[in-house]
Amino acid sequence: MEMPFVNIKIARDGATREQKAALIQGMTDVLVKVLNKSPNGTFVVIDEVDLENWGVGGLPLDEFRRRAAAKGS
Amino acid sequence: MEMPFVNIKIARDGATREQKAALIQGMTDVLVKVLNKSPNGTFVVIDEVDLENWGVGGLPLDEFRRRAAAKGS
Amino acid sequence: MEMPFVNIKIARDGATREQKAALIQGMTDVLVKVLNKSPNGTFVVIDEVDLENWGVGGLPLDEFRRRAAAKGS
Amino acid sequence: MEMPFVNIKIARDGATREQKAALIQGMTDVLVKVLNKSPNGTFVVIDEVDLENWGVGGLPLDEFRRRAAAKGS
Amino acid sequence: MEMPFVNIKIARDGATREQKAALIQGMTDVLVKVLNKSPNGTFVVIDEVDLENWGVGGLPLDEFRRRAAAKGS
Amino acid sequence: MEMPFVNIKIARDGATREQKAALIQGMTDVLVKVLNKSPNGTFVVIDEVDLENWGVGGLPLDEFRRRAAAKGS
Repeated sequence: MEMPFVNIKIARDGATREQKAALIQGMTDVLVKVLNKSPNGTFVVIDEVDLENWGVGGLPLDEFRRRAAAKGS
Repeated sequence: MEMPFVNIKIARDGATREQKAALIQGMTDVLVKVLNKSPNGTFVVIDEVDLENWGVGGLPLDEFRRRAAAKGS
Repeated sequence: MEMPFVNIKIARDGATREQKAALIQGMTDVLVKVLNKSPNGTFVVIDEVDLENWGVGGLPLDEFRRRAAAKGS
Repeated sequence: MEMPFVNIKIARDGATREQKAALIQGMTDVLVKVLNKSPNGTFVVIDEVDLENWGVGGLPLDEFRRRAAAKGS
Repeated sequence: MEMPFVNIKIARDGATREQKAALIQGMTDVLVKVLNKSPNGTFVVIDEVDLENWGVGGLPLDEFRRRAAAKGS
Repeated sequence: MEMPFVNIKIARDGATREQKAALIQGMTDVLVKVLNKSPNGTFVVIDEVDLENWGVGGLPLDEFRRRAAAKGS
């Protein structure tokens, strides 16, 4: 009985309880299907990260999106 | 002076300040006793995870517990 | 363009390149399907952990399995 | 296009949005300069940890500081 | 049945199998004692980090130690 | 004395000891400059990930690069 541990980091972007439940179910199914792990021994932890704490392109994510949108318009 | 780093992920289940302090003290003592590390160089970070963000058995933890309780009754 | 980051910790148990590729593809598909993330912005990192470095039930995993097998026979 | 992933854990100590933006920019610049990574492929996630969840010297950080200050005065 | 997950990062400094087993047992005992967790649901993963990949004081750990020893002599 | 902890995950792509030392120095300098942290209390851990264990676009990184190169030629 060993326990694959899955940690998902996503931006705090309004993922609903249902979506997070679907992530948990989906990730568990992949480990069961691919590595034949037991569902009850498969753990998934979701970390939701505030936009100002997630950096991409050297910018906080909200600022990165603001500039990308401005460039796009 | 090197720093063992301990990260504990637990479900956000009402662990009190005293219990978390006891976790910090206990984990530090283990590293001091087993690997002779200095207490001031031993760092423990506790992540408390919302029940809907912790998946087990393909379900969010609160749902997993609800079903286990229903099955148990 | 924000980047979900998935970290999978599994025991170093002989997962093949193909199985790990299937984990990567499977986890990516779940994030694309559930949260509409872009595949090229979805990162999956697999950590394979030596059996003596993965503890369960207070024992290294290989010892845990040895005792479980002995109990089972 | 591969993505260095940087995770910074700091105590929740009042870091401002501007300071966190400067951390993101600074860390990204280091990876661009040293390893020639693309800024848009460099991700930085900041975790701010409550003082009672960060242990040092066997104590929660706020208690560790209180004792250090008492000793200092 | 929820699973506290403990990740210990230590420098790759010759920790023996027995010491790592003692870390696993010790950390598990702390979680059982303090939070009444089940041993079989308590997971401990030890990451051993090469000295040149562990930075302290802005230096790789082996260089940091070399300078500290030189200063000490 | 609290300890920012920085974890950098990069693909195992031939980063030299000197480059990794420069990453450690650079990341430490950013934390000292931006948050006035003490260098000796700033820890940086570099994880180098095998290409087949790093997924992007649903593919292992080496395969992702192979296809990108083929498309580019």
